[in-house]
Amino acid sequence: MQYRKVKILGTGKYMPKMAMTDEEVDRRLGVKPGWAAKAGGVGTRYYVSEGETASSMGAAAARMALEAAGLDFNDIDCLVCTSGTKEQPLPSTASFIQQALGAQDSGVPVFDMDATCLSFLVGLDTMSYMIAAGRYRYILLVASEVASAGLDWTHKESALLFGDGAAAVVIGPAEPDEASAIIHTSLHTYSRGARYSEIPGGGTRFPPQRPQPSERSFTFQMDGTAIYKMASRLLPDFMDELLTGANTSMKDFQLVIPHQGSAMAMRLLRRKLGIAEQQFMNITPHHGNTIAASIPMGLHEAIVQQRIQRGDRLLLMGTAAGLTLGGMVLDY
Amino acid sequence: MQYRKVKILGTGKYMPKMAMTDEEVDRRLGVKPGWAAKAGGVGTRYYVSEGETASSMGAAAARMALEAAGLDFNDIDCLVCTSGTKEQPLPSTASFIQQALGAQDSGVPVFDMDATCLSFLVGLDTMSYMIAAGRYRYILLVASEVASAGLDWTHKESALLFGDGAAAVVIGPAEPDEASAIIHTSLHTYSRGARYSEIPGGGTRFPPQRPQPSERSFTFQMDGTAIYKMASRLLPDFMDELLTGANTSMKDFQLVIPHQGSAMAMRLLRRKLGIAEQQFMNITPHHGNTIAASIPMGLHEAIVQQRIQRGDRLLLMGTAAGLTLGGMVLDY
Repeated sequence: MQYRKVKILGTGKYMPKMAMTDEEVDRRLGVKPGWAAKAGGVGTRYYVSEGETASSMGAAAARMALEAAGLDFNDIDCLVCTSGTKEQPLPSTASFIQQALGAQDSGVPVFDMDATCLSFLVGLDTMSYMIAAGRYRYILLVASEVASAGLDWTHKESALLFGDGAAAVVIGPAEPDEASAIIHTSLHTYSRGARYSEIPGGGTRFPPQRPQPSERSFTFQMDGTAIYKMASRLLPDFMDELLTGANTSMKDFQLVIPHQGSAMAMRLLRRKLGIAEQQFMNITPHHGNTIAASIPMGLHEAIVQQRIQRGDRLLLMGTAAGLTLGGMVLDY
Repeated sequence: MQYRKVKILGTGKYMPKMAMTDEEVDRRLGVKPGWAAKAGGVGTRYYVSEGETASSMGAAAARMALEAAGLDFNDIDCLVCTSGTKEQPLPSTASFIQQALGAQDSGVPVFDMDATCLSFLVGLDTMSYMIAAGRYRYILLVASEVASAGLDWTHKESALLFGDGAAAVVIGPAEPDEASAIIHTSLHTYSRGARYSEIPGGGTRFPPQRPQPSERSFTFQMDGTAIYKMASRLLPDFMDELLTGANTSMKDFQLVIPHQGSAMAMRLLRRKLGIAEQQFMNITPHHGNTIAASIPMGLHEAIVQQRIQRGDRLLLMGTAAGLTLGGMVLDY
């Protein structure tokens, strides 16, 4: 057991102004009307437009999370950006979020953590130990993603899935008499699948100002079938390990909040793991896959929609490029 | 006090094969012979060439660190890439390092942490809490940088400073009878200086396949004077806070291992903080500024050159784009 008295104090969310409907996706992809609706189940996703950046969205979500927590940015001891994409290659997106919050002279330490779609889960897991040890009291985690910056519109199966947006979560110590706690986390990376989903170019391997290996080098490339096969094979044992480690079982969860990878990935999860429909948080409609913002957005919606109450047992989980499987059991 | 019984178990380093001398830098910059030697004090830095990537270098440094620690990759519970640059925008560089280590089926969890030049220090600080809590026993931290991928050769003051390379460190619990411990860390980010050093384009703000704000958008831009002024103003109070927090004083340090930002930054540090020359680890010659690999390389060299022994008190410190000031007091 890795039990620690750490609590979700407040959450926030920001969705960009520009809506992108399945109909518009159909037109952009040049497919027949109705294709995107059937293939993705997203309906509407949102893309950044003029004036919206990862940091501006992240700051907006952060303000909402701080308000929900009854805190001010001055109370925050550390800000971590837990996103799978970066606003700039250098410096950290967290620096720009601090700036966008008007806290450019605060001195609050900031940095980025990246485990692609599981960045928030990894950030929550890791940073909770600093709270449990008393190093920091309040930590602000922000996942903010501009997926639309890297879509490959020649690859219709991936282009339709993604949306932009941000979510933020404030964590802090739980009081001894509170039920809130993080119970257990399991994380495993199998880099045999590292290239099953990737953006090949634009980093130091293929710097953007130099010739690229392909004309689609700067956009998201995905072998959905390979991911599906690998995840299908690994998920049952992974879940056994997680549930055993947490000394809990699927029926104990008030809600499972999965990474909204795709309708296919979500069906796989539910079927493979035997999750009841009313236990399963599906925010794919109106959001799509917002990369690492997906899980904290689901958490935010679960709270706002009153699908969870204090003390309820939750499972946050998903797969991420890497290929990483991750799950966390916590009592909200 | 944040005292925790966490120990540096082994270190490793990898330098690329291709040497780039000051004379070659002079020629490439089109300046008169001797300029780079005088301005940078680097002498020789190394750049990646055919077959060398951030992950291949990181894996080589990791193997050396594992050997020094008397461990095998199978003993490692978590691998964190603590670099200021990324091999690809997606997935994490750590995934590719796991793959380059031949551990693609190991399931060892991996992710990236980015605080630009202080990524290693932040990673060491953060991850040490997971060891102290018993969550992980052995963690492999790898900083691997290909600075040469983003140099602006029209800006001679920055282009001459940087070199490529990797360093790796294995950490684990210290036994109760060992002196080894992490004593205290101070970190502060002032994003007023977030644009004093940056790579503006190539992230989600200015995606690489779209028009850029300038033709130098993909390369490292630095306002050295602004950084110097800001760091000069902040450093004395920062150091007071760090030394007070650690209940130690400058004379207690066997060695100060600074980020090798530039000869100018190093002189500023020594003068502002009153550090004696024999206490000061200078690896700028033969390395240059290797971004986040700089501090763990200095640590590795200090061990290899026998400038430190078990139990010696060390100060790791530096400034990073963000702008972040960071320092860690530890007993080796």
